Amino acid sequence: MKPLSPTDNLFLMLEKRQQPTHIAGLQLFDFPEGAPANYVSRFAEELREYSQPVAPFNQRLTYRFGRPYWKSDSQFDLEHHFRHVALPKPGRIRELLALISAEHSNQMDRERPLWEAYLIEGLKGRRFALYSKQHHAMMDGVSAMRLGTKMLSTDPNERNMPPVWAFDLKSKSTSKITNKLDATTFAAAARAGIRNNLTAIPHVAKAMRDAWRKSRSDSAYTSIFQAPQCILNDRITGSRRFAAESFSLDRVRAISKAYGATINDVVLAICGSALRAYLLDQNALPDNPLVAAVPVSLREDESIGGNQIVTVLANLGTHTADPAERMQIVRASVLEARERMSSMTQQEIMAYTALMMTPAGMQMLTGLIPKWQAFNVMISNVPGPKEPLYWNGARLRGMYPVSMPLDRLALNITILSYYDQLEFGLTACRRTLPSMQRMLAHLESAIEDLEEAAGLDRAARNEMELVW
Amino acid sequence: MKPLSPTDNLFLMLEKRQQPTHIAGLQLFDFPEGAPANYVSRFAEELREYSQPVAPFNQRLTYRFGRPYWKSDSQFDLEHHFRHVALPKPGRIRELLALISAEHSNQMDRERPLWEAYLIEGLKGRRFALYSKQHHAMMDGVSAMRLGTKMLSTDPNERNMPPVWAFDLKSKSTSKITNKLDATTFAAAARAGIRNNLTAIPHVAKAMRDAWRKSRSDSAYTSIFQAPQCILNDRITGSRRFAAESFSLDRVRAISKAYGATINDVVLAICGSALRAYLLDQNALPDNPLVAAVPVSLREDESIGGNQIVTVLANLGTHTADPAERMQIVRASVLEARERMSSMTQQEIMAYTALMMTPAGMQMLTGLIPKWQAFNVMISNVPGPKEPLYWNGARLRGMYPVSMPLDRLALNITILSYYDQLEFGLTACRRTLPSMQRMLAHLESAIEDLEEAAGLDRAARNEMELVW
Repeated sequence: MKPLSPTDNLFLMLEKRQQPTHIAGLQLFDFPEGAPANYVSRFAEELREYSQPVAPFNQRLTYRFGRPYWKSDSQFDLEHHFRHVALPKPGRIRELLALISAEHSNQMDRERPLWEAYLIEGLKGRRFALYSKQHHAMMDGVSAMRLGTKMLSTDPNERNMPPVWAFDLKSKSTSKITNKLDATTFAAAARAGIRNNLTAIPHVAKAMRDAWRKSRSDSAYTSIFQAPQCILNDRITGSRRFAAESFSLDRVRAISKAYGATINDVVLAICGSALRAYLLDQNALPDNPLVAAVPVSLREDESIGGNQIVTVLANLGTHTADPAERMQIVRASVLEARERMSSMTQQEIMAYTALMMTPAGMQMLTGLIPKWQAFNVMISNVPGPKEPLYWNGARLRGMYPVSMPLDRLALNITILSYYDQLEFGLTACRRTLPSMQRMLAHLESAIEDLEEAAGLDRAARNEMELVW
Repeated sequence: MKPLSPTDNLFLMLEKRQQPTHIAGLQLFDFPEGAPANYVSRFAEELREYSQPVAPFNQRLTYRFGRPYWKSDSQFDLEHHFRHVALPKPGRIRELLALISAEHSNQMDRERPLWEAYLIEGLKGRRFALYSKQHHAMMDGVSAMRLGTKMLSTDPNERNMPPVWAFDLKSKSTSKITNKLDATTFAAAARAGIRNNLTAIPHVAKAMRDAWRKSRSDSAYTSIFQAPQCILNDRITGSRRFAAESFSLDRVRAISKAYGATINDVVLAICGSALRAYLLDQNALPDNPLVAAVPVSLREDESIGGNQIVTVLANLGTHTADPAERMQIVRASVLEARERMSSMTQQEIMAYTALMMTPAGMQMLTGLIPKWQAFNVMISNVPGPKEPLYWNGARLRGMYPVSMPLDRLALNITILSYYDQLEFGLTACRRTLPSMQRMLAHLESAIEDLEEAAGLDRAARNEMELVW
């Protein structure tokens, strides 16, 4: 038996029917060459043979004196966790996204290991999908993505590759990320603080107190707290909408060069543009620009991975209709935040982030600003695999993060790079943000607008149709 | 806005992730003659046209001063409620039951009208299915079954028939059952009493007090409280197993004649036999016979429908290996209970039932018997349509109740008659009762054993394979 960390426990505390705290990944595969029509059924049979999961996939919750622990599930039942399902005809991406939206709305059974995996057949064009769902108390999104990647191979001829629940991490060199104090965790802490005890995370509480003391003598601390009221920050309900799309990395890279911006800046500008279009549709665009919480690297080069990841608040420039102007606003705000942080100690960065992300905590400390909103949306851009990957000969065609909306953060946008693509995963409360899937078309328009404004060749259009 | 009745509210109070309080029906249809291969997709499109539901399907919960009310959902989103899904290959009943088991485990979103309907394609042999799920706070099982039947027609040529959510009850003569004080409700009241306030149902509380007073001067009241401890009465978890099967009504009728018993008696004897076999498999058969709570008619004839339905406790005779002896035990115990009740006033029957069904309530009143179990399992035999029914030309091949296990009542068996079949629906917690689906084979064996013991012609075997 192993006790849960306070951070992991936070995601149990936060969970309720209208706010499940699981995350997931959707992977899209091509059939291996020469595979028969019933390939997926056969593959499902093979996967069922892996009936003995490795840790943490064999661990369930138990409570001792009110505290949660992990223990081995003595009644492990693979049929509950691994499910072979199918799309209705015509098996388009539309049907796939509808299925993922429905499944992602369902809260998991806490009396079992907190994961589910769905092998999905019936996709058009000799493809299949894998939807892998984990509770955030068990694994954070980046770790889950890494694990879902590590089980794959760069070798299309490799076979007998186990599924993720039977994949022995120790057998491969791994650099497991355990950086749980990411943006989602801070945002979650803020939400928990409203109803529970934020000081369940002692170092967050301490950092907040320190930051608050410092902020009284440094006006720059508060100047960024200016997110407008927006439907993005209404309360959420229990049903989800998931939308996903792949865009060409080359295309985004060309834009970044044309504007002298990072890939991350371009991603933010595209998201800002799409959010503006969506909120205009909904007649809900605030006058002031939306603010996004964004993990960025303190290093100057474009690779986001590396040593020092911090979360900053970025101005998304949604008040202007001009895509080039929006790009400059985004770029300047990220640059400013990054420079300010570069001069801070690790301790100061943590305090700063805690203060920035936890309005409820701030309210607790100060008694001020009860409805204050630090930011409107979370946008994470995560580096993924750089080479094409295969699972028992099936080529990974795309992989999309399925994330976790929270009360007052009804939309989460996570972007993942894979080989020559940028994979956008948008997860929202489908009641708070109706027809959120229209954001996909707005993202494509946003890229086209930036290309046009920069005079780029439109022949470099994305290969969406090929992927989808 | 309309307030919920205390009984309806009970099912909201009782609900938690490991104990969802919805019920459902599964209907199996043949394709209409000459229907194309993509019939189900087309049909799904047609059903999506019915985007404006009628009451109660357009009503969602709202709270005023802590009390629940129904109100119209101003943001009704049919896509959330009506889902077109598919079975993976090979599309056998096995795959269908796996899908229903998974979906029935999922708790609904309370911020929307509390129903979902799944049109299921991919069944072998030109068939499709409809799984209709409702919260018990919105509708009880019998009402849901009646409504799901009323939307159908005896005319195979009728077309333009709306789905249940758009079916205007007022346009047809209906005898809507509102008898919510059924066995499930009493059992639910008992469960609620453990954690909440049983007196939320004033007439139950009053009836219990009356019954308790009376029981002190009448030993027959307590003599029936003798259910053994059994795994059927362990706590449940949040995942379900659903199993269903059709048996020939003629075959059961022949057995009832041979033994001079009612159809209901035969059903109970079969269930007792199957429970005995299942519990022997699990090495968990109690020495003393299992006790079932069973709604029966006070009328003598075989048609269970009619005026006076009461719930009695039946001895299932699981302690004996002899099927004929078990049948006599069941028959005698039902007869005795029915006779005793026939001499009671309506008021007395209600008091008697309340006392019988509510161990927690009894404990509250007496401070005695903390772990006392009044009965082990609920078995309901509900009369359904007597003629073949059609939905837009698709013949209803079978319809199966999907019910609601509760803490300490881990299995619910509901049987429905339809035309020439008896439709068994078994719903259980899949952790508390592993491999519960084996009960289906045991049910078939139980029928064969009774036939053999009575010297009946085995040529009258059921047509299971035809149906499934």
